[in-house]
Formats: sequence, C-alpha cells, structure tokens
Amino acid sequence: MTTTFESFDRMWAELEPVGRNGGTGGYRRFAWTRTDHDLREWFAGQCAARGLDLVEDRAGNQWGWWGDPDTTPGVVIGSHLDSVPDGGAFDGPLGVVSALATVDALRAAGTDPAVPLGVVNFVDEEGARFGVACAGSRIITGALDADRARGLTDADGVSLAEAWRRAGRDPDSLGRDDEALGRVAAFVELHVEQGKALAVAPDGGDDLTDPSRAVAVGTDIWPHGRWRIDLPGEANHAGTTRMEDRRDAMLGLATVVQSARSYAVALGCVATVGKVHVVPGGVNAIPSHVTAWLDARGQREEAVRAAVEAVTKEAAGFGATTREESWTPTTAFDDGLVERLHGILPDAPLLGTGAGHDAGVLATHGVPSAMLFVRNPTGVSHSPSEFASPEDCHHGVMALTAVVTELSAERAADSTGDTA
Amino acid sequence: MTTTFESFDRMWAELEPVGRNGGTGGYRRFAWTRTDHDLREWFAGQCAARGLDLVEDRAGNQWGWWGDPDTTPGVVIGSHLDSVPDGGAFDGPLGVVSALATVDALRAAGTDPAVPLGVVNFVDEEGARFGVACAGSRIITGALDADRARGLTDADGVSLAEAWRRAGRDPDSLGRDDEALGRVAAFVELHVEQGKALAVAPDGGDDLTDPSRAVAVGTDIWPHGRWRIDLPGEANHAGTTRMEDRRDAMLGLATVVQSARSYAVALGCVATVGKVHVVPGGVNAIPSHVTAWLDARGQREEAVRAAVEAVTKEAAGFGATTREESWTPTTAFDDGLVERLHGILPDAPLLGTGAGHDAGVLATHGVPSAMLFVRNPTGVSHSPSEFASPEDCHHGVMALTAVVTELSAERAADSTGDTA
Repeated sequence: MTTTFESFDRMWAELEPVGRNGGTGGYRRFAWTRTDHDLREWFAGQCAARGLDLVEDRAGNQWGWWGDPDTTPGVVIGSHLDSVPDGGAFDGPLGVVSALATVDALRAAGTDPAVPLGVVNFVDEEGARFGVACAGSRIITGALDADRARGLTDADGVSLAEAWRRAGRDPDSLGRDDEALGRVAAFVELHVEQGKALAVAPDGGDDLTDPSRAVAVGTDIWPHGRWRIDLPGEANHAGTTRMEDRRDAMLGLATVVQSARSYAVALGCVATVGKVHVVPGGVNAIPSHVTAWLDARGQREEAVRAAVEAVTKEAAGFGATTREESWTPTTAFDDGLVERLHGILPDAPLLGTGAGHDAGVLATHGVPSAMLFVRNPTGVSHSPSEFASPEDCHHGVMALTAVVTELSAERAADSTGDTA
Repeated sequence: MTTTFESFDRMWAELEPVGRNGGTGGYRRFAWTRTDHDLREWFAGQCAARGLDLVEDRAGNQWGWWGDPDTTPGVVIGSHLDSVPDGGAFDGPLGVVSALATVDALRAAGTDPAVPLGVVNFVDEEGARFGVACAGSRIITGALDADRARGLTDADGVSLAEAWRRAGRDPDSLGRDDEALGRVAAFVELHVEQGKALAVAPDGGDDLTDPSRAVAVGTDIWPHGRWRIDLPGEANHAGTTRMEDRRDAMLGLATVVQSARSYAVALGCVATVGKVHVVPGGVNAIPSHVTAWLDARGQREEAVRAAVEAVTKEAAGFGATTREESWTPTTAFDDGLVERLHGILPDAPLLGTGAGHDAGVLATHGVPSAMLFVRNPTGVSHSPSEFASPEDCHHGVMALTAVVTELSAERAADSTGDTA
C-alpha cells in the first residue's frame, strides 16, 4: 500500500492550507463560499485524475463513480469537506481523502470492484453557514424541504437560494433526489473519532499504538436535539437603573448555562449552550432579551429528555419559553451492514457516537449506511487540536479498502443470485 | 407660553417618525447614517427658521447662534439627536427641542438675550455606531484623538473617516476645536431623567404631578468604567465530549454575570454585563472563548472599584483576564453654575446621574457646564418606554427659559463689570 499511503499523504498536504485561518490554525470552510468552491474544484480534479465520472445531485453533493451505478447500484464511501468555524483538519476531509486513497489502493492492487464504487463529497454537513447540519443529505432525502432550504439565511442575511445564484447555480433545481439515492446500495462513511474511546485502552490507560484499536465500527448515533430558549428582560440604561428595578435577561442565561451542566452531569448525558444572542447587545444597555441554544444528547433518550425538561423548568422561572428546534431519536445504522463490517474487521471495537452524520441521515431514509471511526488521541473535535496519526489514517484506508472489496464482491454475488 | 408649547409639540411631532423602527417602536438614529443626515438637516432648518447662524465645528457638531459668540462668549443649551439601538424618543431630542422652544419663548416674550445664545446638536453622543460615547464633544475637546477617531470602525468595518467621506466631508478636517469651545461661556444640557428619582416622592409613592419635581438640577456624573473580561475554554464537539472532559468558557460567563449582580447589590453600586462575544458560537460547539464586557458605576468610587475587583477575582478562577477599557472618575458639574441653577430653580431637587453626557465631557475640559433633568415616570431609558409627559416637557422649557434669561443677564453684568 506504499503508493496508496503516498497518495493519501499528498492529498492531505494539498488540502492542508485551504480555508485555514492563520491566527487560530483552525479551518473556516463554509458551504458555497469561495473556499468551498476551491474544495469542490479540488474534489472534481481528484475524480478526473482517477477517471471517476463526476455527477452532482439536486443538493450539489458530488459523486465520483467508478462504473455505472444506473445499471447496478454501487457501494459508496466518502464524507464531507466543509468545517465548523475554526474546525480541525480531519472532521470530514479524512473520510473523503481516505475514500480517494481507497480507489488508488484498488487500482494499485489491480482490483476492479465487482459493483460500481462511488466516492462522495457531501455539501454543507456542518451547517456552519445556514444553520442546518447535514443539509446536503437532508435535501436529497427530502428530510429538509426544498423551499425551507432555499429560504435558510446566513449571518449576513444571504439566503441559500441567493448563495446558489451567486455560485452560478439555479436554486429552483434544488430538492429531493431519489435518482441519486437509488444509485447507492450501501454507504460507508469513515470519520475521525470525536471522543477518546479508541485512545483509551480497556484498562483505562492511553493506547495510541495498538493497531486493533486504530479503527472502530459505528453502531448508532445517539438521540440528540436542539432547543431554543428565549429569555425576556426589560431594556434599560446600565448606568441609571437601580439593581432592584432591573429585569436583566442575562441573569436567566447564567442559570440556563449552569443548570444545563449540572443536570447533564447528574443524568449522564451531555448538554451545551454554545450559541447566544443578546439584545440590544450594548455595553451600557441592560439586556432586554437573550436567546440561548441548548444542545443535548446521550446514549439514553430518557436521560436527555429529563435534562432538557429540568433546564426548561429553570428557564421558565425567568419567564422564558423553550422551543424544540430539532429532535433525532437514536439512529441505528443498518444492522446487516454493521454486522458485515464487524465481520470484515473483526478486531475493530464497536462504537456509538453523539454526533450527527450524513450516514445517519441516509440510514433513516432507507439507504443501508454505516460508519468507521479512526482513533483520535486528543479526543477533541471541531477544533484545530482534533487529530489522527498518519499510521492510524493509513489503517483507516486499509480498513476501507477491505470493506469495499468485500462488500462489492458480496453485492455482485447477491445480484448474480438474484438473477439466477 | 402657549405658542412656545405649540412650537415644542410641533417639533416633537416632526421628529417622531424619523429613524423609528416599525417593529419595536424604538429608534435607530446612528451617527453619519442617512437617518442622522435627516436629523441634521431638520436641525439646520429649525435654526434657519429662527434666524440662528449655523456653525459646524471640527467634529461636525451643529451650533445655531443668536448673536455673535466670537465677540462675546455665549450661553449654550441643547443636547443630541442620535440614539442607541432601539432607543427611546427622549434621550437627546428632548434637550434639542427644548432648547429651540426656549428660543421661541424668548422671542415670544420679546426678550433679547443679553449675551449670545447658542443651541447645539452634538453628533454621536451615544456611540452606537463607532463605539465611543460622546464622540462629538470628545473630539473638539481633544479627549478623543483625531487619528483614533478617524480609525474607529462600525460593525461593517466602515471607519469614521470613510463615513465622513461618504457624507461628503473631509475627515482630515476633524479634530480638536478650541475656537468652538471658546465661544461657550456656559453650557446647560437638558435631558430626560434616566431613573425614577423624580417620579418617586420622598414618601416612597409615585409622584407624577407635583410640578416642583418636574425638573431637577444635575450635580455630578457618577464615576463609571468599562472592563473587558476574556474567559478561556477549549473548543470541542458538544455531542461527543464527556462533561468531565470539558473546559467550557460559557460557565465562566455565568459566574461573571451572577457575581456582577451580587457584588453590585452588596456594595451599593450598579454593574451590568450587556455585551458578550462567544467563540466559535456554534450550537454544537463547546465555547472555546467568551468575552464579556462589564459596565460598573455608582455614587461612590470605592464601591465601584471593590465590585469590579470582586468580579475580576471570580473570573480569574476560570482563568480569565480582565482589562480596564475606560474609567471616568466622578465628574462634578461647575459648582458656581450648579449653584446658580439651583438659585434660579429653587424648588428643583438636586440629582447625580450614572450616565455619561456631553455636558460631562465639556465640564472636565474647562467649559462651565451643568444639566437639568426632566421627570421620567417609567424610569426607563435607552428603550422605547422612556417617557416624559407633555406637561413635564413644558416645565422643562420654562426652566430652561428662566435659566437662559438669568444667566445671560448675569454674564452681561459680569462683562460690563469686567470692562468697568
């Protein structure tokens, strides 16, 4: 696989400077920006160099096909290239680069996949610009309505429709795409792990060298949701209003932040207030309104629900209203597919995750999907310190290559069986 | 004074729709915007209609003169026409409209002021656009350096210099203006009260009709300052990072908000966190950094200092650094002038204030200055609910008329005395 690893490392080096913020070292790769265009162009170039046929679906997701998936649905690997604000290098790109390197590994071995092989770059997985995560997969599955998608706006008030127009695209063509989904027999998304489960050995110590813990097979995505909490206050002058005459919305925020933490700890889930909006937001103005967004997830749905209910109650004490913006129950990946991956990679641990992924969206919309996770020694993600060692990345490519080879062979055998 | 009151009410009605936000009913009158241009044009028209000579100084403050202040320095009344975001109708405009109505009252009474009378509209008192309050008076007194002023930027990155250019002005001409200040023998700024001191009778009940409590004489501006608190955290994924592995900057903010309140209450001053900046600010990202701005003021400097020190200490527990962005000690208005106003308006209560004003800036730069406050039944300011009844506004005009008449006569007597 020497050539394959060289190809992986070369692609990694090519992507390294794209969209990087000199100050923080983090990436700012947001959907339908010029940086995103650079990344999409890069992906198109990689497909062309490998003789893959590039097809875009009605959300703008890019699919590079080896073989004709309109004749026989194929096995798809890949992930996304966009990032959260000041995100790391691995979340997304690791899956795309590993998929392209897998094509190289098959070519180097002289293996023609038995069914078509697709490499996908999903657009706008992080939702950093327009606020909806996994927008690319949600649009083609119909989980995100086309009109709602077109109307999403970024922080500057630019709608997704307008962003499409500026990118020379026709937003009217955006929408559900059963044809694109029909080409996918199975989707396997490789992703950097976003926690320390693989890096911590069963005995509790760090384990960063055991090759059998370099890659895990994903089992499910935890239930997760997002709530918007609106805390009222009364606008007034910060210098002239007595403390006893104030109704300061910021005090409600302080309680929401603290109760989110304490209930999550008590109930064994995670809860975060990562985004707030303060009105009017002046240094000398008592906040008349604060909006806080609560993100909560966990292995157990009841724990997450109970934590959110408790925070809602605390917020209500400040006159706040809490509205559920999204809720996704446990997403189990395709049982048969998970079992097969575990059969192909018998040493790989099984792992659930608290993060949403395009593989999860596809899984809930009838496309057999699963994931592989690559060990992350820092356990950190959505940050410049997210990491995977070159050795572990190479293990990821080997795992993906084994998976693609086996799954294609099985699909081909199944098809033959079907016809017989 | 019937005609005068009619003139006041007419001007008030003219200003009422300018820069009003239909949604909130609040005003968005920011310096050097088209709304501000409308207001400046209106002011120029009012001066012209009264035969006042309009002079602009090197900060763009507008002075309408009755008589020639280059021969004899005059008595100046007025305030500002700009607003905070979603501010009320009274903060600023009440002083300008009352000053113009005072000119009408003198004219109606056939009184020629014994020394020149000026009406001023200070530009950018609120600092809502470029972040520096009292920019107009600070520039002409030299308290705000011309280069620093030109380099101030608004939220869109437009510098004050650029805003001047767009308004057809030459930013190079901006700067300290001793000539303009030399024309001012005394400045009296009438302003809506930004608290409930006049509305609450000595026995604790509401008192909204006692004419002797319609207007107060300002004594001083409380010491006040602004601190920037930088709270560090560690960026990480909100869904995949265990609660025990987090370093969430938002938790520090919660403590800062609560401790600011409790120490201010305990020490008898006021403290506010009205503006925060959360990085990266994503719903699914643990905050890696929060910046909070603390505004603190009070009658007693030691109390303010002690409260800020206590909050700083709490913040330091979260690894935060606190930096003083500004500090203004107690600003006493001109003793002699305050005494004279109290002599002219013997029934008016004496009142300190926690808000900064152009009169305060002028007072600290050698221009004898003082203030009058008009009763505000809601006690609210910087909000659409800030209010003063028409009757109290008319009382304000009468008070200002009495003050101008008396002060001019005294100045004239003094000058005669000087020459004698």
